[in-house]
Amino acid sequence: MKLATLKNGSRDGKLVVVSRDLTRYTDASFLVPTLQAALDDWHRIAPHLAALAESLETGAVPSQRFHEHDAHSPLPRAYQWADGSAYVNHVELVRKARGAALPESFLTDPLMYQGGSDSFIGPRDPILLADEAYGADMEGEVAVIIGDVPAGASVETARDAIRLVMLVNDVSLRGLIPDELAKGFGFFQSKPSSAFSPVAVTPDELGEAWDGGKVTLPLQVDLNGKPFGRANAGVDMTFDFPQLVAHAAKTRPLVAGSVIGSGTVSNKLNGGPGKPVSEGGAGYSCIAEIRMIETIAGGAPKTPFMRFGDAVRIEMKDSDGRSIFGAIEQTVQRYEG
Amino acid sequence: MKLATLKNGSRDGKLVVVSRDLTRYTDASFLVPTLQAALDDWHRIAPHLAALAESLETGAVPSQRFHEHDAHSPLPRAYQWADGSAYVNHVELVRKARGAALPESFLTDPLMYQGGSDSFIGPRDPILLADEAYGADMEGEVAVIIGDVPAGASVETARDAIRLVMLVNDVSLRGLIPDELAKGFGFFQSKPSSAFSPVAVTPDELGEAWDGGKVTLPLQVDLNGKPFGRANAGVDMTFDFPQLVAHAAKTRPLVAGSVIGSGTVSNKLNGGPGKPVSEGGAGYSCIAEIRMIETIAGGAPKTPFMRFGDAVRIEMKDSDGRSIFGAIEQTVQRYEG
Repeated sequence: MKLATLKNGSRDGKLVVVSRDLTRYTDASFLVPTLQAALDDWHRIAPHLAALAESLETGAVPSQRFHEHDAHSPLPRAYQWADGSAYVNHVELVRKARGAALPESFLTDPLMYQGGSDSFIGPRDPILLADEAYGADMEGEVAVIIGDVPAGASVETARDAIRLVMLVNDVSLRGLIPDELAKGFGFFQSKPSSAFSPVAVTPDELGEAWDGGKVTLPLQVDLNGKPFGRANAGVDMTFDFPQLVAHAAKTRPLVAGSVIGSGTVSNKLNGGPGKPVSEGGAGYSCIAEIRMIETIAGGAPKTPFMRFGDAVRIEMKDSDGRSIFGAIEQTVQRYEG
Repeated sequence: MKLATLKNGSRDGKLVVVSRDLTRYTDASFLVPTLQAALDDWHRIAPHLAALAESLETGAVPSQRFHEHDAHSPLPRAYQWADGSAYVNHVELVRKARGAALPESFLTDPLMYQGGSDSFIGPRDPILLADEAYGADMEGEVAVIIGDVPAGASVETARDAIRLVMLVNDVSLRGLIPDELAKGFGFFQSKPSSAFSPVAVTPDELGEAWDGGKVTLPLQVDLNGKPFGRANAGVDMTFDFPQLVAHAAKTRPLVAGSVIGSGTVSNKLNGGPGKPVSEGGAGYSCIAEIRMIETIAGGAPKTPFMRFGDAVRIEMKDSDGRSIFGAIEQTVQRYEG
């Protein structure tokens, strides 16, 4: 089934079930008001939501036109946002850009940061920046929402806890990252509010593209209307979602509704860095990577980070070309405090 | 007023109002079921809670005996836990123990990490460790719960958003920290679930000990029944709570119910590191500090990190010796997965 949260003026929005083709929705809030409430009691609620989804497909329940721009992130606020860096190619490139080497352990021990989860924004909400010099960069990623996971959970237990899959734009402020990471405590100000896809789907909606741990489909990232990234989320993912979840749960339990991200999707090309989409490559899911490629090739980056007015679109289509999650579509705008 | 959340088998517990002397409580859940719900709608709900608190003091409402061990953390799960390191003396000592210097900027730019907020534990719950070698250490701190804060908020706006004050034991796994911080993305596995004091209080309950930004009272930290720390939370706090909140809000809004911590309370002595309580000093709010002092004095640490069975107690008393928040009292136990 496919679930969305419609903006309704409340902090957590209203839960709806969306049709497979993303054209219609039916209210699910009579079953349970919010997605978090559904996740809190998933084993009891999910069968009812699934039945509602089937009724929606057959036209057996009232439905309305689904507009992606009416959707909030599936969880407008969450109790946890833990973002891995599972595509080690991305980590390698971004660190190279900072002049830092890739430690050998990064191939066996996942990199993960604790992100802010209190103020997610909607998939069509602007990226608000007080200062263009912050160097806003999109990061196109896949994320999962999990159920309760006990501390010390195995990878198999973690796999069973995956409830929903969605996309995320984990915006980074590249201009703030070097100084902030140098302080030693990870990201804070350099990670503003993330936006998630209009729809979150149960893994079965992904069919053969879901192998229980990752989504083997290209992530379409467009910058200002042009294809920027077509990296396959199932390729070069050094750690899959069950591994990331188990990593997060090593020393403490994770509660239902925790969101675990893949990190920026990134593919190698013949063992080395990729090529832009315009040159027939898989491209990039963030600007930092192409800047590094440019630096390697020509001594300096050419592509600027996002400026006011720049627009990013992130979407994933199934093998028949149909949008699975709807599109994240955000424009950078000046924040007037 | 003083608020607590009683464990009732639900994820968020039940909101109650507690008497000033911590002996009685009255149910507040007919007004609003949980503390998060109260914070979501604070301006409407808080006056009713305050009226209930007054009725409780005068015996005008039914009440029951308040047992601190029945309390969960005031917010059993929160949308954000952002912990500063406002006592730069602590940062300096802990970094010295890691062989790292204190950058000059740490005196003007607060250090803060994004912590896990999905699975707080109760103030009398055990600290569960799979392995004693993780090196569990308590960190006694003060924390505030805030209302909504817009992105880019001023220090004054941040000050006005402080709703409640409480204590926290922000447990650190010292054995895991060096490797994790070396990865560059901050804490994750090295910070298991934090526990907060049984009661959260509005700032007015602190009287003259609250200057609008910090609590000028000693934080009592006992280890295995012996005084370990008596550092004054109002002394050597390089950044007060409004400054910490404004730092957290620099690039994104903070939603109501976000918890902002002070970092480990730590006092200098004549400009240098302090002395143990047993030698007449203010002592320490974590073990890492005394180990550093021991290393400076004798070349090696003597005090071990917490072992199975070790107990920590964290409490703060007003100038008349009355407990303000109740006590955090936790024993380290082996986690059986």
